[in-house]
Amino acid sequence: MDITLEEIAKKITSSDRILVLSHNFPDGDTLGSAAALCHALSKLRKQFVFRCDQEISSKFLDLFEDLEDTIYQGKYPFEPELVISVDVADIDLLGSYAQEYAEKIDICIDHHGANKKFGKYVYVDAKAAATCEIIFSLLPLLGVKIDPLMAKALFTGITTDTGCFRYQNTTSRTMRIAADLMEFGVDAAEVNFKLFEIKSRKRLDLEKAILDGMEFFYGGKVALIVLSLDIIAKTGAKEEDLDGISALPRTIEGVSVGITLREREQGVYKISLRTNHGANASDICKVFGGGGHPGAAGCTLKNSLEEAKAMLVDESIKYLEKL
Amino acid sequence: MDITLEEIAKKITSSDRILVLSHNFPDGDTLGSAAALCHALSKLRKQFVFRCDQEISSKFLDLFEDLEDTIYQGKYPFEPELVISVDVADIDLLGSYAQEYAEKIDICIDHHGANKKFGKYVYVDAKAAATCEIIFSLLPLLGVKIDPLMAKALFTGITTDTGCFRYQNTTSRTMRIAADLMEFGVDAAEVNFKLFEIKSRKRLDLEKAILDGMEFFYGGKVALIVLSLDIIAKTGAKEEDLDGISALPRTIEGVSVGITLREREQGVYKISLRTNHGANASDICKVFGGGGHPGAAGCTLKNSLEEAKAMLVDESIKYLEKL
Repeated sequence: MDITLEEIAKKITSSDRILVLSHNFPDGDTLGSAAALCHALSKLRKQFVFRCDQEISSKFLDLFEDLEDTIYQGKYPFEPELVISVDVADIDLLGSYAQEYAEKIDICIDHHGANKKFGKYVYVDAKAAATCEIIFSLLPLLGVKIDPLMAKALFTGITTDTGCFRYQNTTSRTMRIAADLMEFGVDAAEVNFKLFEIKSRKRLDLEKAILDGMEFFYGGKVALIVLSLDIIAKTGAKEEDLDGISALPRTIEGVSVGITLREREQGVYKISLRTNHGANASDICKVFGGGGHPGAAGCTLKNSLEEAKAMLVDESIKYLEKL
Repeated sequence: MDITLEEIAKKITSSDRILVLSHNFPDGDTLGSAAALCHALSKLRKQFVFRCDQEISSKFLDLFEDLEDTIYQGKYPFEPELVISVDVADIDLLGSYAQEYAEKIDICIDHHGANKKFGKYVYVDAKAAATCEIIFSLLPLLGVKIDPLMAKALFTGITTDTGCFRYQNTTSRTMRIAADLMEFGVDAAEVNFKLFEIKSRKRLDLEKAILDGMEFFYGGKVALIVLSLDIIAKTGAKEEDLDGISALPRTIEGVSVGITLREREQGVYKISLRTNHGANASDICKVFGGGGHPGAAGCTLKNSLEEAKAMLVDESIKYLEKL
């Protein structure tokens, strides 16, 4: 059932034991939303717990500063009255917690247009660039004044999901919320430097190896990179070092279709397509049983590397010829 | 003499023949400021001309859409009543026009704290992240409503000078102006994609060559790259492909001092230092007769490559040891 932000605020205010859930492979938006909400619950002197299927990347740990005890990865110390998921589009994205909470989500707060509306109450604003924009509107309704820690958490989510205000989802409202958060005390430059400029030596080595192997087809309109198990092993790159790698081929001038093949296991490739110039990534991926958005889509291929590359390049060229 | 924006607006309104000047090696801010002002002068039905010492990079040409006749690189067709420089910190930055205009600048509009205040009237706001922020405030005083072309020009300047809202100079006011400009019709995502994501094949080759040669010292706290004439020739990179290269070493995790040696001619190196973690780039460059800001500074060394590298690395380590 749909619910308003005012009603969500009432439910939170009238509950004492609250559980906040983030999606798996947690990013800045799900973690920023959860952290800001937890900081607010702390101010309201609620009992609360935060759970996430996976370990939080070191670059996001500071969002939970002063809240350490609440990041409770095992059994929580109370029976929750209210279970809230943030930025979770589908119950399956709770990972190993999905089954446990399948029927127990009270409030689902999200900004994904494709949200499966799995909670008892659902608030989805697909125009929000990030779930953190929604939490930004919720906090004052809880009677909580945004402090620097909340501002950092919310700013982190917004800048993550907008690629530092670069993507099409960035609206004038996004910019104004960011301005407010800066006045509430977030060091925006520090957050953005950490998220968008600093790269690890392993990431550097990985990028070098991948760029060395980048292939171009069809007059440079199709670019392809391979993220092989071998390259990952050789460079010692961790999951967090791989973040955003699939955006690389599309950033080369003239490229309409950027293809990334990530080897999951021998003969199994997770494919990411990113497109420019009106090419529709989802249309190409659908041919292989995948899908996604017009600018970014994916599919899985169980083929040899050479077969998979040929299939993707051929299909991309066929698509571009028709365009 | 200092002047207010209101007084500048009066002078513009009461003049008929106006010349607008940008600095040499023109960037998005000086060009965005000039273009927005020219669009406004066009709306006010003024005679006006824009001059800049150098060719405008293709990525900024669209800012002058519908104004082609006014980009007049030779003699201008009238004797100007009012000469305005935008984003020009020092008369020398007019390049080959410096001498001609040394005594002829009526109004100098700028945001550089180190502005030499060379005009008859000077308006410097060092808190503005970009001169385009100042022009944004000036246009309404001229009675001009910001249209999509002006919005694009101003947004281009602001996002250029803030590194897409990432640098320390970005304020909440910057974000709010950007929000307004989006509502005035700029496609922010398109501008940012063009300025910050797309890279040419030549730039890609250049980055690969430079990253392959990146050296680390002092436990990874000092990183050094060399932009040799040889690498530039081999990759065919043009001046615009070199943009921002000196920011690369500092983006590697753990680096406190990032050093770029750009070979100008044999035995002459233009040095750029970028620092993190409280290291002061200007302090190090001063040792070699240079200077700049705490986070970014430069100097020139007339030595062999090996000598220049050793001098810079030794001095950086000496500095970090004391820090």
